[in-house]
Parts: sequence; structure tokens; C-alpha cells
Amino acid sequence: MTRNIVKIGFGIGLTGIIPVIISCTDSESKTEKPNVVIIFTDDLGFGDLSCFGHPTIMTPNIDRMAREGQKWTNFYVAAPVSTPSRAALLTGRYPIRNGMCSDKRGVLFPNSAGGLPVTEITIAAALRELGYRTAAVGKWHLGHLEPHQPLDHGFENYFGIPYSNDMDRIERIDYFELVAAERFQAYNVPLMRDREITERPADQRTLTKRYTEEVVNKIREYKKEPFFIYFAHTMPHVPLFRSAEFKEHSVAGIYGDVIEEIDWSVGEVLKTLEKEGLAEKTLVIFTSDNGPWLPFKTHGGSAGLLRDGKGSTWEGGMRVPAVMWWPKHLRQGVVTEMGSTLDLFPTIINLAGGNIPADRILDGYDLSPVLLGTGPGQRNEMFFYQGAQLYAVRVGNYKAHFKTKTAYTGQNEPEIHEPPLLFHLGHDPAEKFDITAENPEIIEIIREKTKLHSESVIPVEDQLTKLIEN
Amino acid sequence: MTRNIVKIGFGIGLTGIIPVIISCTDSESKTEKPNVVIIFTDDLGFGDLSCFGHPTIMTPNIDRMAREGQKWTNFYVAAPVSTPSRAALLTGRYPIRNGMCSDKRGVLFPNSAGGLPVTEITIAAALRELGYRTAAVGKWHLGHLEPHQPLDHGFENYFGIPYSNDMDRIERIDYFELVAAERFQAYNVPLMRDREITERPADQRTLTKRYTEEVVNKIREYKKEPFFIYFAHTMPHVPLFRSAEFKEHSVAGIYGDVIEEIDWSVGEVLKTLEKEGLAEKTLVIFTSDNGPWLPFKTHGGSAGLLRDGKGSTWEGGMRVPAVMWWPKHLRQGVVTEMGSTLDLFPTIINLAGGNIPADRILDGYDLSPVLLGTGPGQRNEMFFYQGAQLYAVRVGNYKAHFKTKTAYTGQNEPEIHEPPLLFHLGHDPAEKFDITAENPEIIEIIREKTKLHSESVIPVEDQLTKLIEN
Repeated sequence: MTRNIVKIGFGIGLTGIIPVIISCTDSESKTEKPNVVIIFTDDLGFGDLSCFGHPTIMTPNIDRMAREGQKWTNFYVAAPVSTPSRAALLTGRYPIRNGMCSDKRGVLFPNSAGGLPVTEITIAAALRELGYRTAAVGKWHLGHLEPHQPLDHGFENYFGIPYSNDMDRIERIDYFELVAAERFQAYNVPLMRDREITERPADQRTLTKRYTEEVVNKIREYKKEPFFIYFAHTMPHVPLFRSAEFKEHSVAGIYGDVIEEIDWSVGEVLKTLEKEGLAEKTLVIFTSDNGPWLPFKTHGGSAGLLRDGKGSTWEGGMRVPAVMWWPKHLRQGVVTEMGSTLDLFPTIINLAGGNIPADRILDGYDLSPVLLGTGPGQRNEMFFYQGAQLYAVRVGNYKAHFKTKTAYTGQNEPEIHEPPLLFHLGHDPAEKFDITAENPEIIEIIREKTKLHSESVIPVEDQLTKLIEN
Repeated sequence: MTRNIVKIGFGIGLTGIIPVIISCTDSESKTEKPNVVIIFTDDLGFGDLSCFGHPTIMTPNIDRMAREGQKWTNFYVAAPVSTPSRAALLTGRYPIRNGMCSDKRGVLFPNSAGGLPVTEITIAAALRELGYRTAAVGKWHLGHLEPHQPLDHGFENYFGIPYSNDMDRIERIDYFELVAAERFQAYNVPLMRDREITERPADQRTLTKRYTEEVVNKIREYKKEPFFIYFAHTMPHVPLFRSAEFKEHSVAGIYGDVIEEIDWSVGEVLKTLEKEGLAEKTLVIFTSDNGPWLPFKTHGGSAGLLRDGKGSTWEGGMRVPAVMWWPKHLRQGVVTEMGSTLDLFPTIINLAGGNIPADRILDGYDLSPVLLGTGPGQRNEMFFYQGAQLYAVRVGNYKAHFKTKTAYTGQNEPEIHEPPLLFHLGHDPAEKFDITAENPEIIEIIREKTKLHSESVIPVEDQLTKLIEN
């Protein structure tokens, strides 16, 4: 009756870090192209789900995904803020490779002219080539002007807000008062369908509900063909809004209400897949774009036992909850191996029987051996960028911080560490106990890998500083 | 397919706090007296189990209990240290009522002469009256001399160490070196069977394993009659030792090894119950005596998102993981209602069809409506004692701190708060954001309840300062 635990220790090895072009398995060996639904929340922390230990936020549908599928506990995004994290998920590449991170601006803003370059290949674009139907629903934040919109990047359909829900602020009343009064009009954020603005300001109270209806409809519309739906929730990024049915739904306050509505939404997606007979044909991935935005206090979530939150290269900023669900396919259990949103590109393209582009460096590893229980994970390292600067590097269970900046306290200038701080994330997931002095050889291995990685980075145009000309 | 979530908000009510003598249900309404096994760990923190969100400590057997039974996320012990916490569990009474807490000594020591008074009624003694077989296995810590031993308190059999495993220290080498060398001989702790010392120093490396064998044997020996087994692990209290099979078992280091051996032990207990056809006749309760001992760093565990640890009246000291398992009886799910080890006495005696003693104040509430899914929980308050001093009071979701002392930093003198600090544990489980100023009426309600509680406390002899005469 006990579930399998997929547990493999991470040795600190000397394998090269030059990202490998993943060899594609023969597409004929796949019986069927699986559908893929990625549910990507905004600012949800490592500790904010019931199955990740939150005491009062109740997430029965996500917990069910974890119970029936896999709960990943060492899963990373490639940046601690929205725009670069999203770019990494869709392309399988560190944002430093395509200009989607910058030292001058953390993310894209309404006055930004830049965005994900058309030369980049997204999961959607790659799957389109393989005959998939594709839709993006929710927050985009990879460029709201052409040629950076979802429809420029392989998505047939789009419905959502083009950037963060706290942008275009036009009223300066106190944040907490505004939310208490449900004054969504304080933010003049547009809601778009495909390339058109259909509502402005977007009524944020019903976004989670309307996104969910859209996804449910798209599943029904696409069901005869393989499909990919990228469902990027606006919430729980502040300002927090939820529909009437979820008001005071949670003992954890409005933050809990918002998460519990997202959990309801997950339930609707699963239910639709089951009703349409698609559950066993669909890989559903639930995760978050970065850690919790701690300065927003009770509107800001929790990284659980991890250190710091959104905007930080401490674990709380970049380790996120991740749950995978694909009935009858996944090896059930808790996965402690490393994974990243960077890995979704090669994993999905491989499962779909496609070819990984050979003309560029990819930073992802195919997770399918771990998903299917056929082999160990290949990811042994993770690079932690703050803007365009490399701050920290994890190799095996060891993480070295060359620079640190605490986001929670709003620290402006980074602290430089030479030698770097070193933590063993197995023994000390909260990064409390520096073990640099005892481990000079580990530091050397990490320096080596860092050097190889940095040498692989070629300077490109910064997309985040390009502004609309007035 | 979604599990039920037993979730009921806690209003802050004005119901009296004078502990109610629980009316006993008719014993004939019970089809059968259930067996009860309490598995009580030592210094295991709120964040130390996989099902409570630890990323790398793997506890598949305890997770299974949670999945098939109930995971309680607002479950408290009645003291943040060993002796008073254990006294409360076995008697259903705050330690202040029977002298098992003190301002001078936190717990009992090898030179202590005192212990749990013979006038106290333990769960074991009450169940003996109802025809149960009874055994205590593991750490006692309620008085190692007669008339305070397990056999003086309703247990027919005892096998274990009489106090903490870090006592009787006879070698003064560095703690971490000692553990690395597995030098259990540094602590001259006795191992006892019934009233006799059978091994000294106890070989702590195999205690978890030998305790487990003892419990398995007792289940087999008792199986024809109803039984109660109080299985109080020595671990993960420092010094940490584990058997050869669990060395480097965990990616989380020796602390993880120790927890994973305890998890193995839980699996052995469940397996034995299933093999003997007793699973549906046995309520198994897993919890901890207090929070993690944080100053021991990587040997000290984690309270997850909760504040502080062992020795503290902050949540991390007294909120503990709790899991209940009783196939075909429990309403499955996550329980966010308040519960306490104080409640085990009336719950168990009620389930066994017994009478709650009417000659004394009990501080427990019958949890069986929540366990069985027949009604809401009755606990609406919790009192947080530091030694013999009342430091904090929770009523509904609000917790007021009249005094605080941070255990992690070794703060010596308490900070007095007038008005008290106030936190909403639903919105702010980490006790970060004081909301005293906005809630004077809540403070008044809590003061009222505190007054009623304090008036119910009658001075008794301090058991912890009584020493063996030389």
C-alpha cells in the first residue's frame, strides 16, 4: 500500500555542464502524443499548498494531483521574478541567453517595447510543428506588443492580461484599503483576446474564474487533436481578488481564498479531462513562477522552511512547489531529484516525439525518465541569476552563493562572498549553516562548473530596457 | 476522488473555558473497544515530515497514515518541553495542575526524586480498569523512581529509557564528534525492563529498532484482548543515533536517517496490525512531544513555517505534526480544527466506553466527533505555559502573547507585553504581524478566558524540584 518514493541521492560529480543537445527518442516509439496542460501560478510560495505543509490553506485538488502523481520538492524556476522565469519555462533556456533578464529592470512594464525575441522557439511553437493545438490563457508578461505576443510565439489563441496585475496603476489609495474595497479599477490593466483588448480595466475579481472557463472550453474544442494549454494564473500576485464564491472561503484570509480558488480551478481542469476521457492522455504540470512576495505580509504567502522569497536567489525565491499528474503513466510518489521549468521544453518535446532544436544551447534536461520511472534524473546543477548577474550555483546537494541580496528586507546592494558561502541543501534546506571552510574541494568543483557555464553565455540585446518611443 | 477536508472555521466565541467534565457515551453503543497505539516522538518539529512539507526527509509510512486517515495541522502539546508535555498527554491535564512543571527546572533529571503523582490517573490506568492490556515502550521521563514508574501508572509492561538520552553524560568530548564516532557510551543512560535496569549505558544505536521489536511483540501477545501501547521514541532528541541499516539512508543527513528509521518503525507497527487482522480495530496516533531543538543546527529539525522551536511558547515550540489512522472509522482528510495531546485522554476513554473521572478538572475535549466525522470539534482555546508561567493564550484563531522568550537564541529573561501581542494564526501562522492595536475587543475576550482558566488552577507541590537526598 505504500507509495513508491523516487529518491536518488545527488552525488557531486564532475560531469560537464555544457548543456547537452538532448537526443530525441524515435517518435514511432510513442503510442500517442500526450496533451500537456501547464498550470503556472504567480508568486505562489513553496509553503503555500496543503501538500507542501501549509497548515490552513486547503488545496484538495492539487493535493490529489500530488497523491496520484508526483510531488517534486527540489524544483526550480530559472529566475526569481516573473518575466525571465516565464521566458525560461517556454524556451528551456536561461534568460541570459535571449535578453529576457537585465540589471536595469527586473521585468517588462507597460512602457516596454521589448519582449521574447521571435528567434526564440517556445514549447507552443515546437508543438505546433508537431500538429498540436495550442492556447495561452492568463498572464503573459513576455512582451505585450507585436512581435512578442502569444500569437507571435506559437499560440493559436490567447485570453488574458499581458503583464502583471499591479501595473497601470491609476489610483493611489492605500493597497490594503483598495483590496478590501475590491477596487480593481485602481489598476488599468487590459484584458486581451488574441491581439485585441476586450476589457479595460480587467475586472480582476473574476479573472481566475474566467480563465478557468476558457481553459475548459479550449480542452473541449481541441479534444480530437493533441493540445498544449499554457494556463498562467494572474493570482496570487498582488493585488488579490477572488470571485464572490471564494470570499471568506479560507481560514487563511484573502490569500487563502485566492489559492483555494486556484485549487478549485485545478479541480475543474482535472474534472474536464476526466469527463472528456482525456485524463490518461494528458500530462498536467502545476507550478509557480517564483517564490512568495514577502513584503506584502499576509497577502504575500510563505516559502515554508526555505529562506527569503520572490526576487531572491536564496531558495525561497526560486524553489517552487511542483506537482505532475498523468494517470497510468507517472511513477507515483515524492521526487527529491532536481528539476526545473527549464526542463519542461525538452521533456514535452520529447514526449511529443519531436526534435530538440540543434542550432542553439538549451539548458533543460529531459525529465521523462523520472516521470515515467524508467531512469534517474539528469539535472545535477542549477544556476541562480539575479537580473543578468549569476549569484549562486547548486551542484548536487551543494549550493554556493557568490553574491546574496535579501529580498524580504529590500536590501539594495548585494553582498559579495569570496570565498562563496556554501550550504548543503539536503542537511540544511533553510540555508542557515555555512560550510565553506570545511569544503574547499566542493567550492573548486562549483567554480569549475560556473566557469564552463559562463563561457557558454554569449552577449545578446537586453529586451527589458527597450522602451516605447513617445 | 477528492478526499474530504474536515474544515471548520474557529469563531472567537464567549463559551466558558472552565474545563467541562465530558459526559460519557453509553458503552453499549460501542460495538467493540478499539485498541490504541500512541507513537510519540521526541523533538520532532512541525516541518520534519514529508506530509508536513519537508523537502527531503522521506516518511512514506507516516504519509500513508495521513493519506488514509487524518492529518491535523493545528495540534498542540501542553508544554514546549518533555516532562510536562508527557504528563499532559497521559493525564489530559495541564501540568500546572499536578506539579509536573516548574519555574526552576524544565524537566526531570537523573537526580530528581519527584514524578507524576500517584493520585493522577493516566490513560493506561483508566484503560486497565476497562480490561485493556497496557504497555509503555520507550522514553518515560515522568519519574524514574517508585512510585512514579510506568508500572505505578497503569502499565503492565515497560521497556525503555527512564529519561532523556542526553542525560547521565560521563564523557565531555564535542557533541558532533561524539555522534560521528557513534560514542553512545558518553551517556550512561540506563535501559530498563519493567523496574529493572537491564543495560547501562543503553546502546542508543539500536534503540529505535529494539523498541519497535518490543511493540510488535506486545501487539502479538495482547491481540486477543483490547490493548493500549504508549510507544514513546527516544529519537530524534539529541544525541542522534540510528541502526546500521539507516546510516546514510537519507539525503537530509543523520537527522533524516533518524526520522526515516522512525518512519520505518511506523511501517512495522502498521504492517503488524494488518497481519494480525487488527488494523480496523486499532486507532494509531502519531505525534511529537514538542518542537525541534533548533540550537542543535542540522541535528535539530525544523518547525517549517512556524516561529521558534522547542522550549518556546511561539507556535514552533508547541504546535506539532499529528496524524491519526484507523481504517474504516476515521473521516479521511486534513483537519484544521484545534486539537491537543490533552484531548487524547477523554477521546480514548470515551472510545473505550469508560467514564471520565468526575473528581478533578480535565483540560481535554473529546476529539471523537472530528475523528469519526460526526460533529465539529469542541476545542476553542489553548494555554501556552513556559514552566509554571502562562505566557500565551489562543482563542479561536487569535493568539495573545503576554510574555515571550525566544528559545532559538537562548533568550534568558522573558519580554513582558502589555497589552499582549496578538496574532491571527489563520492569516499569519508564522506570528509575524502583530494586530493588537486593531483588536481591543479580542484582547478583552482573551483576558476573560485567561482569568477563568487561572482561577481554576490550584497550587500543588512542585514535582520537578524534588531531589534525591545524598
